[in-house]
Amino acid sequence: MTLLVAISGWDPQPWQEQFAALLPDRKIVTLDDPFDRREVHYAVCWKPPAGSLAHLPNLAALFSLGAGVDALLADPRLPDVPLVRIIDANLTARMSEYVVLHCLAHLRQYRRYLDQQQKGLWQDDRSQPAAHEISVGVMGFGVMGQDAARKLSAIGFPVRGWSRTPKDFEDYEMFSGPEGLELFLARTDILVSLLPLTPDTAGLLNHSLFSRLKQGGKLGGPVLIHAGRGGVQVEADILAALEDDVLKAATLDVFSAEPLDPDSPLWKHPSLTLTPHNAAISTPASIAHNIAAQIRSFEAGGLLQGLVDRSVGY
Amino acid sequence: MTLLVAISGWDPQPWQEQFAALLPDRKIVTLDDPFDRREVHYAVCWKPPAGSLAHLPNLAALFSLGAGVDALLADPRLPDVPLVRIIDANLTARMSEYVVLHCLAHLRQYRRYLDQQQKGLWQDDRSQPAAHEISVGVMGFGVMGQDAARKLSAIGFPVRGWSRTPKDFEDYEMFSGPEGLELFLARTDILVSLLPLTPDTAGLLNHSLFSRLKQGGKLGGPVLIHAGRGGVQVEADILAALEDDVLKAATLDVFSAEPLDPDSPLWKHPSLTLTPHNAAISTPASIAHNIAAQIRSFEAGGLLQGLVDRSVGY
Repeated sequence: MTLLVAISGWDPQPWQEQFAALLPDRKIVTLDDPFDRREVHYAVCWKPPAGSLAHLPNLAALFSLGAGVDALLADPRLPDVPLVRIIDANLTARMSEYVVLHCLAHLRQYRRYLDQQQKGLWQDDRSQPAAHEISVGVMGFGVMGQDAARKLSAIGFPVRGWSRTPKDFEDYEMFSGPEGLELFLARTDILVSLLPLTPDTAGLLNHSLFSRLKQGGKLGGPVLIHAGRGGVQVEADILAALEDDVLKAATLDVFSAEPLDPDSPLWKHPSLTLTPHNAAISTPASIAHNIAAQIRSFEAGGLLQGLVDRSVGY
Repeated sequence: MTLLVAISGWDPQPWQEQFAALLPDRKIVTLDDPFDRREVHYAVCWKPPAGSLAHLPNLAALFSLGAGVDALLADPRLPDVPLVRIIDANLTARMSEYVVLHCLAHLRQYRRYLDQQQKGLWQDDRSQPAAHEISVGVMGFGVMGQDAARKLSAIGFPVRGWSRTPKDFEDYEMFSGPEGLELFLARTDILVSLLPLTPDTAGLLNHSLFSRLKQGGKLGGPVLIHAGRGGVQVEADILAALEDDVLKAATLDVFSAEPLDPDSPLWKHPSLTLTPHNAAISTPASIAHNIAAQIRSFEAGGLLQGLVDRSVGY
């Protein structure tokens, strides 16, 4: 019984080592190793080369090493077996660190004071609003969105949530579906998007949506923090919205093409803060542990956690 | 019955208006107004000119508009009446925003990615540790230290505390006094100082103390975040400790002389992040409300909250 580590872009070696240690009774192979395709019962993947998962006749389940499975689902030869997206406490916690950091950096004008520092300028107009005066709207209210919401609340931000299907939480004002979007946007000072990339969300973060966010407000205009999937945003619209003052500023971790083109105008825009798709960092130790436990539970008759619904794309 | 607003450096006008609205039955005057010194029963102060509070024969209590009272206590002509330092939920919340922001900015290398962005560089070595791997040590564990500790914990940082006198908290490993300092420092990756300036703390944040912090560690060396009082730090020692790699980086909100000299070498040091003493921002509305409530309670026979013990300086 073999577990196939099908990774491109990252080094597969640490993953192979982690799984070998956690599942000593299995053969763990990478795409570069010789292996019998009929022996492969499980595959763990991150951007596997197209078609590399075809012809695995005894495959029982596929595990994505990232929370987003849009790239996997784009492969027409992806085997029709249960597909599991990782829900990992460490990955979730890292995403919340990122979200809280960037909400606070906009609230407390980190870059303004850094600019002043670089000019040797001591200046404070005491206009910084408090967290309790700034409404954070979280789009995508799954495991990650809920964790971010809980931590933003602990810091003092009033949090509102939007999800595709209705969800209820005592601590947050919740909105759902297209019919809930207008009111959600109109009440949001900082929009945090953790949405998956699906046919419904592709291009959703566009000029029209930005213009429906609460205009004005105590930050001088709405702020976008996007750490979901690049395909959800329209990058030309972000630039246009900054130009039109429909957006005040944005922090982007994801882009429609990654790595971002060195010539992209996004890099040098003074109101944009960019990070190289590292908001939530997968660590082999934590994620491999999670997947090994799922395989053992699955073989003992348990249910897989984090099963992807291919009809909605996440 | 008169309340005197004795402020220098800030505009007294908004404070005067706030108190006039909250205490309509009192006369509210600034140092520039004509007033009868015998009528002054209360004074609210921020860096009052030396001696400006003398000759107020019927003064019943003094309220500091900031949490630190070192500047007030340095005035030998300060009247010997109950002195109240402000303990204000808004001020406390703002300090915690600042502390959490700067802990996360160091954890997630905000400035490194900003530098990369300015160079158009997409690069990530995936070496960022998680909050749960970084121990934050909070020195000064009063109302502000406790609130910061609670919020840092919520984000996932293990928090340790140090206070002058022993304090017990279930959620944090606590240390106290000179005898507790060594172990506290040896376990601390990020040192957050919220200490008051007293004869005991003056110059405490010096090269010797920095060298006793946990060296190495997952941030590559210890980090200082100082938002207490400038006199607690030795600025030449901060620069020397950065030079010696005994400190990795620091965020400073306070300085031995404020505003910081435009020629200070602190401004341009690439490992320093500076803000103009605005970590915890006093807002007239919130603080005036608090003081007006204290005055009413005091006159009804209640106890003043936040009384300064002049023998220890806070």
